[in-house]
Amino acid sequence: MPYVNIKVTKRGEITSEQKAKLIKGATQLLVDVLNRNPESTVVVIDEVETDNWGMGGESITVRQSKGK
Amino acid sequence: MPYVNIKVTKRGEITSEQKAKLIKGATQLLVDVLNRNPESTVVVIDEVETDNWGMGGESITVRQSKGK
Amino acid sequence: MPYVNIKVTKRGEITSEQKAKLIKGATQLLVDVLNRNPESTVVVIDEVETDNWGMGGESITVRQSKGK
Amino acid sequence: MPYVNIKVTKRGEITSEQKAKLIKGATQLLVDVLNRNPESTVVVIDEVETDNWGMGGESITVRQSKGK
Amino acid sequence: MPYVNIKVTKRGEITSEQKAKLIKGATQLLVDVLNRNPESTVVVIDEVETDNWGMGGESITVRQSKGK
Amino acid sequence: MPYVNIKVTKRGEITSEQKAKLIKGATQLLVDVLNRNPESTVVVIDEVETDNWGMGGESITVRQSKGK
Repeated sequence: MPYVNIKVTKRGEITSEQKAKLIKGATQLLVDVLNRNPESTVVVIDEVETDNWGMGGESITVRQSKGK
Repeated sequence: MPYVNIKVTKRGEITSEQKAKLIKGATQLLVDVLNRNPESTVVVIDEVETDNWGMGGESITVRQSKGK
Repeated sequence: MPYVNIKVTKRGEITSEQKAKLIKGATQLLVDVLNRNPESTVVVIDEVETDNWGMGGESITVRQSKGK
Repeated sequence: MPYVNIKVTKRGEITSEQKAKLIKGATQLLVDVLNRNPESTVVVIDEVETDNWGMGGESITVRQSKGK
Repeated sequence: MPYVNIKVTKRGEITSEQKAKLIKGATQLLVDVLNRNPESTVVVIDEVETDNWGMGGESITVRQSKGK
Repeated sequence: MPYVNIKVTKRGEITSEQKAKLIKGATQLLVDVLNRNPESTVVVIDEVETDNWGMGGESITVRQSKGK
């Protein structure tokens, strides 16, 4: 019955194929490590604007402009 | 003081009227079961693209195309 | 495929019966309003210490001591 | 290593400068109170439509129309 | 800069070794699929009591007693 | 109407006084930057075991044992 929430910044387009790989991979991880039922494993992906994500006290927009 | 977060996939439009019913119903549920103050109950609804939601290791987009 | 997260402060014990009513009620709400499949609706309840929940800039512990 | 998630309703535009202040301020708060490393502090801001946020059993859209 | 939250029900003990595998696997998944920096990838695991998790309108405690 | 969720690892005890400062500071930040109503601002603090928090593909427990 696991629930996995993956939050990533929008940097270029994240394709449907990449999202499918994240869903498949996260579900398989819970099978491999904890033997949980894949049928009832839920994965939700959130794409976040770089202005709305901060690290080190700065937005990712600013960090990228500085080459961090 | 409860906080309720409802995440649903976007399948057709979810109308303002439906959202109002979700907010009213979730708030009332906390009153009925736990006698919590409705004035300080917060409800947040997130609408998620079907590509970004997975179950059984597949996106909802793919599952719908298979008639699941 | 909805996911509902209910966060409530711990004020006295929340019984297994009350939790069951929250799960049943939240699941039914999504059926009634959006016609979503109850079998794949997930509900997660988080119980939070009153020291760890704030409103109006004060913890619930402090608010309760003031009769708010 | 803190993680801070700030959810706010969209009421007018929230500018990049305001988001930068939220990120800087939340990160500094964790330094000041708990002496946590700002470099590994993550802040994520979610902007929520007023139809999708409820309080007191009503959406913020409705509350604003009533002058609440 | 991804953030991954894994919620699982407590069914028997989840060992430190299993948690380490979840952290390593989720971080590697983001590297493999989206080429994100593992150093700034955060993983948080929440263990949830079976009374506090519902599916199909019932708690996991009840579902397990029915052999679901 | 903002909602702020602060997740921190448990490293030593986090006192009620420190939690009160986090609640007050986060609420004031939303007043200062976005002029939001402090009375309806909710803050929830989650304390997470160091085994359950990962960064750089390792748990905080392991990172601390390596002096990171």
